[in-house]
This record gives sequence, C-alpha cells and structure tokens, in this order.
Amino acid sequence: MPPVVTPLDIDAARRRIAPFVPPTPLVAWMGDDRDLSSPVWLKLEAVNHTHSFKVRGAFHALLRFLETYPNEATRPPLVTASAGNHGRAMAYAAERLGVPVTVFTPATAPRAKRDAIRRHGAILDDAAPDYDEAEQRARAWVGARGGVFISPYNHPDVIAGAGTVALEIVEACPDVGTVVLPIGGGGLASGVGVALRAAAPGCRLVAVEAAASTPFTAALARGAITPIVAGFTLADGLAGNIEPGAITFPLVQRVVDEVVVVTEPSLRDAMRRLASDAHLIVEGSAAVAMAAVLTGRIQPRSGPTVVVVTGANVDLETWLEAVAR
Amino acid sequence: MPPVVTPLDIDAARRRIAPFVPPTPLVAWMGDDRDLSSPVWLKLEAVNHTHSFKVRGAFHALLRFLETYPNEATRPPLVTASAGNHGRAMAYAAERLGVPVTVFTPATAPRAKRDAIRRHGAILDDAAPDYDEAEQRARAWVGARGGVFISPYNHPDVIAGAGTVALEIVEACPDVGTVVLPIGGGGLASGVGVALRAAAPGCRLVAVEAAASTPFTAALARGAITPIVAGFTLADGLAGNIEPGAITFPLVQRVVDEVVVVTEPSLRDAMRRLASDAHLIVEGSAAVAMAAVLTGRIQPRSGPTVVVVTGANVDLETWLEAVAR
Repeated sequence: MPPVVTPLDIDAARRRIAPFVPPTPLVAWMGDDRDLSSPVWLKLEAVNHTHSFKVRGAFHALLRFLETYPNEATRPPLVTASAGNHGRAMAYAAERLGVPVTVFTPATAPRAKRDAIRRHGAILDDAAPDYDEAEQRARAWVGARGGVFISPYNHPDVIAGAGTVALEIVEACPDVGTVVLPIGGGGLASGVGVALRAAAPGCRLVAVEAAASTPFTAALARGAITPIVAGFTLADGLAGNIEPGAITFPLVQRVVDEVVVVTEPSLRDAMRRLASDAHLIVEGSAAVAMAAVLTGRIQPRSGPTVVVVTGANVDLETWLEAVAR
Repeated sequence: MPPVVTPLDIDAARRRIAPFVPPTPLVAWMGDDRDLSSPVWLKLEAVNHTHSFKVRGAFHALLRFLETYPNEATRPPLVTASAGNHGRAMAYAAERLGVPVTVFTPATAPRAKRDAIRRHGAILDDAAPDYDEAEQRARAWVGARGGVFISPYNHPDVIAGAGTVALEIVEACPDVGTVVLPIGGGGLASGVGVALRAAAPGCRLVAVEAAASTPFTAALARGAITPIVAGFTLADGLAGNIEPGAITFPLVQRVVDEVVVVTEPSLRDAMRRLASDAHLIVEGSAAVAMAAVLTGRIQPRSGPTVVVVTGANVDLETWLEAVAR
C-alpha cells in the first residue's frame, strides 16, 4: 500500500496554500532559560489567520475539494467536525473561497471558537457534549444526506497541509535538532513528521499529550488504537479519542520519536511563562509542548529545539484564570 | 537641502536587514466590529525578535555603523538611549553582530525591557528618572569619551529601518486606505510616511499620541518643536519630548496626514480588546493606534485600515492590571 501522505504531497500543499497562508515567524525564546540545555525557538502558529495552525490543513483540504468538484452545481455539501480550531479555520477558508460548510463542535468548545465559526458564515451545530459525539453527528449527517466529511486530523489533505509548518521550520532553522509539538488526533504530528523525515532526517520529533487525554500513549503502548476516557483539561483542543482506523496512528508510529505526557499544573505554568517571557496568549493545547520543554522532559540534542505554538483561541477569562497565581 | 530619508534609503534598508528581520504577519481583525466602517488589519510587529518593531531600525543602524567602521580596532564605542524597546533591540542586534553597546534607559522602563537588555550582554545605565534625562546622560557620555550616539528616533538609519514596515504592508495589502500607528519620537511615523508616499500615494497616515504626552500635537499646532510635560501613561514607550532640532519633526509635518490623541481609559480598553478578540498581549504604546480605531477617531476611507501593533514588552503584572475589569 502506498503511503497516504508523502513529502511530495506536503510540498504540493505548500504551493497550493501559499496565496492564503503566509509563513509564520520563528522567534527565539528569550525567557530565563537556565534550565534549558539548548537554544529554544518558538514557531508562532497562533498568528495565522484564525489564530491556529489549522488554517493550513483547512485551506489545503478546501482547495483539493474544489479541484475535485470544479462544477458548483454538482458539488456535494461540505461537512466537518472539530474541537474548535479546525472548524474555525474551515469556516474562514470556506468564506474566503466562497464555499458553504457545516461545522459540528462540542458545546464545550470555547465561545471564542464558536462565535468565530458563525461570524464566517458557516452553519454551526454545537449540540454534542464532547468532540467524539460531534464527529459522530457529522458523520451521521453525511450518511443521511450525502456530502464530503473533512476530519480535523484523519484526512490526507489536512495532514499534508499541517505538514507545511515543518518545511518553514527547516528553512528558517536548517540545523534544528528537535521539534516539539502538541498531539491530539495526530494530524499535525503526522504531517510534520513526514516532512521532517525528508527535509531534516536527523531531527527528532517529540509529541506531547495532556495527562487528562492520552490516546496516543495508550495506542502506542498496545500497538493499536485503544479507547480512552478523556478528563477535563485546559488543552481542550487535544481531548478526545482517535477514530478507529485513523491513518494518523500508523503515521505517528512511523515518524514520531517519542510521545511525552505533561500534567495540568505544568501546562498552566507554561501558559504563564509564555505570557510573562514571550508576551504570548496561547490556548492550553498550544502550551503542552512548552510545558514539556520547561519541565525538562525533552532530551538534550545538538541543534536548537523548535516548539510549535499551535494556537491562541482561548476565552480571555479562562486564560486569565489559568495564568493567575 | 536633500531629504534626510528617501524611499530609496528605505528600500536599501530592507535589503540590509532582510537576513536578520523576517517579514511580520498581517492578520485580519476578527473582533466584534459593528462600529468599524471598513476592514481592519493588524500588522504584528510584536512578533519580531525582541518583541517590537524597533529591531528594524536597530539592525539597520548597526549594519550601517559596521559599513562606516569596518575596522574593529578603530571603531568608536556605540551608545544609545531608549525608553526600552529601542535599547532592547539595539542590545539584541549588537549581540548578533558582535558589537559592544551601552544603553541608557530611564529607571521607570519596564523590567521586561531592562532585564532583556542585560541578558543580551549590553552595558545598561538605568539611573535616569525619565527618558529625556536618559538621553542627556547618553549624550554627555559620548561628549566626554567619544563614540557614536544612535538616537531611538532622531537618526536617518533608524528611520529608514522603521520605514521597512510600510513596504511589507503595501505588498501584503496593495489597496490599503489608511495606516494608523503610534507616535512617540516620530521615527516610525517618519519612515512609514516616506515609504507610503512613494509606494501607496493615496494611502492616508494617521499617528496617535497618548493624552499624557503630546509633543507632536503641540509642535504641529505651533509649527515648531515645543517642550511639553509628560504625565504618567501606560504607553511608557511614547512618553517624552522630541529633541530640539529633531529631523522627525519636519518629516512628520510632511508625511503624516493627522495626529490623533487618545485617552488612558480608551488605551486600556484597546489592550483588553486586543487580548480578548485577537489574543494578543500588547504594551500600552502599541495599543494607542487600536484605541483610535475602536473609538471611531479614524475617518472612513475606501480600502482597508492597517493598524501597526508595535510591541509587547510589558511586565505581565502591569498588563494584567491594565486589562482587568
């Protein structure tokens, strides 16, 4: 079976999305880094349109959808499910490209994300209690009425789009030794890993889960996708199960070197440090990678460490509470 | 007398600093914008290295200094004064280029800025009570021992470096109708104005002062630089007088269409809105331009409005207090 996502797919994704997704900055972490053994750089995906890296996969999936269905009259309806950021990015890309889209999110998705989805003119269904049920509702909708379902992670076009971040990292920092990123459904980790294996073969890739939801730790330990029960975490964008048969699982097995788990207090500390030292508001999901770095969970390597700061879609009051001492 | 800064100088500055200062993002303001009459985009200068636009002028001034004094043995000492951000940027650029620098700041500059200056290996003198006296101390130092003084605003190389932001804005948004930016000493406004006159002649340029320190409003009204007394403002980076004979005054007279003044409460509101709606931590100085937009002080024009979000170097506790309700 040919690989579902290749480095060439990611290169093509980059060319497709270039008119819509400018490169994001890579800035030095200037914090009090006595306990950091090598230079740390932050890849600021939160300054993308819609404030998360998800806009990469969303534009790529939509542009591919339009290539597949060029005739508007016969184009099937477009449906997606999301913990929030992918849905917001899909709504934004759909608005820019003039395509209707229906987005299913959990009722617990931050208001910042749900309001933005509506503002971009998408149809929002936020009746589900959690992400897993939002996805089931989306699939049931497509089953009943027809349409194309774009998973927030389990889709080759979304994965290839997410992988474009790795090409930018390697260009800006050719001697990168380690990339650290959050892992939820595994789309970002899969895309970045496939790209890194080709563009920076010596680079180590570490993916980080929040302790309240560890589907990849469980699946990698058993060698198969394993249902988990997700608890509450500030990293709302990461919580939930990996869909049975997800293409991200074998990809992560192949291209991710290590999955690390961080606790809720270390995640809050990382949110505060990113605010005080780097002047960044980041959502909980985006802070798990920095939490792993700040708690010394990343093995020292030659070459800088790049931390992917994935998004900023957090309600201000939630964030203020999280960083309060 | 030839103009002190030309569009060609700014174009040359861009080529000089390109290896050190990547372009910054221009992102759509996605706030609840019922009261905004045209699309608003944010130019995110706070995601530069050292978290402010000042890195543009700092690298340009340093690279020009090294062109002028290529021989290390006979190179004069380099001295600067700053409310904080220019000093931090000079310290960073000097570290990257291997040049020693002495930075004078007021004792009241935020700890975030002073600590960073020291961390980059610069000599810091923060004994002065305010910016004006910090500059006098720097000039006295150069007078007594010799050296080259790089003003944070009253220097053609710094102005040309700052102007590079306008070239990026026009490239990303060719139909820009209005640019709104903060004005302190006038370096940014001068550089951006000179570049806009050449690259987007129909674009209007509005500069914004905090009510507690309005040297340009005073000088433009009288037609001459006029001493003012600066009161306390969260926009610490803008507070202070324009040096007598400053080249920025005639430049601002020529290239800025309007200077607008915003109050301290509207500045705090803008800081909060930038946090809640755009997920950005910005310093007070960087919020004055958005405050002018949000309070309806910017006349509607055809074409989008671009707000330059200049920096983020604020102590977290100060910022938390400012955005608290």
